[in-house]
Amino acid sequence: MKVMIDLCVVPVGVGTSVSEYVTACQRVLQDAGLAHQMHAYGTNIEGEWDEVFTAVKRCHEAVHELGAVRISSSMRIGTRTDRDQTMDDKINSVKAKLKEE
Amino acid sequence: MKVMIDLCVVPVGVGTSVSEYVTACQRVLQDAGLAHQMHAYGTNIEGEWDEVFTAVKRCHEAVHELGAVRISSSMRIGTRTDRDQTMDDKINSVKAKLKEE
Amino acid sequence: MKVMIDLCVVPVGVGTSVSEYVTACQRVLQDAGLAHQMHAYGTNIEGEWDEVFTAVKRCHEAVHELGAVRISSSMRIGTRTDRDQTMDDKINSVKAKLKEE
Amino acid sequence: MKVMIDLCVVPVGVGTSVSEYVTACQRVLQDAGLAHQMHAYGTNIEGEWDEVFTAVKRCHEAVHELGAVRISSSMRIGTRTDRDQTMDDKINSVKAKLKEE
Repeated sequence: MKVMIDLCVVPVGVGTSVSEYVTACQRVLQDAGLAHQMHAYGTNIEGEWDEVFTAVKRCHEAVHELGAVRISSSMRIGTRTDRDQTMDDKINSVKAKLKEE
Repeated sequence: MKVMIDLCVVPVGVGTSVSEYVTACQRVLQDAGLAHQMHAYGTNIEGEWDEVFTAVKRCHEAVHELGAVRISSSMRIGTRTDRDQTMDDKINSVKAKLKEE
Repeated sequence: MKVMIDLCVVPVGVGTSVSEYVTACQRVLQDAGLAHQMHAYGTNIEGEWDEVFTAVKRCHEAVHELGAVRISSSMRIGTRTDRDQTMDDKINSVKAKLKEE
Repeated sequence: MKVMIDLCVVPVGVGTSVSEYVTACQRVLQDAGLAHQMHAYGTNIEGEWDEVFTAVKRCHEAVHELGAVRISSSMRIGTRTDRDQTMDDKINSVKAKLKEE
């Protein structure tokens, strides 16, 4: 089962600068070889369910290893059985409609 | 690694009544033997990371099997390394503070 | 327009105990006179759109006033135009189906 | 109070193609003159709290007007009192750290 998620990892209790932790998470995704795209309030990730969620677990582990004792993430999870749809497909579908007018 | 999540599974394109799908998800959680508590806009689930996320995957599979071709879930994920904290602990901690005044 | 939301306010950089901040938010909801129900990972709130979102803003303001310089909340927002549905309706609909078997 | 949100509007019960509704939402944001950036699973929006949440309400109204009787959105909400931080600031902060290694 393919899945597309949007993940935002929030370390709690480690100060207001969280970019160090977000960076650790980006490296986990790179090492996992998963297609992913960071934006200003999270990261899109797509792939096979088990690989994606293994990476999510590693993100939590990596952020804890950096010293954050508490993490509160939020995530969207999209699955569909009718067809494959990549991150680019979704964006291009809306961009095409915006141009129509 | 223990985890507490809050999961809301939203089947897309199957009509406006989604209780049948939510019910299927509740049965998955019961069968998994995981501590869980449904509320009006999601379900709290706690347990070991791998068991909890196996159940989340089964929820998506069960809802697809009922005929939903597209699902868009949202989830909160909480982990902490300093101490165990159950769902009841979290609620009681706030309720105690509310009574103090 | 009626709305039902599920709100989880996460103060960042203030330590790992966040119950003081969650409590402040509960008081805001009580003072606003909005129907609400806390659970272990957020709070269900229902009412007219403008009243509900005024309360959400006050929650953020109250948590900042307590000393949190950064907040990262997550929220689900449900609206429907076909009929009114309360928090209890949603839960009872699933509970009835669970009993059918 | 400045706010940065990440919004994902999910129309329920209108079929599996939701790009028409997402497009309507993008137009609302353009008309509102708010800084925003769409990604594959939502849209980052930043601005003054009241303006941003007025736009969110208009998004729900616009999607209902297109025929969706039920909507279930998910949103992240970030506020901070220590300093201004734009969407670009957040991304550049992580990108700089990724290059350091």
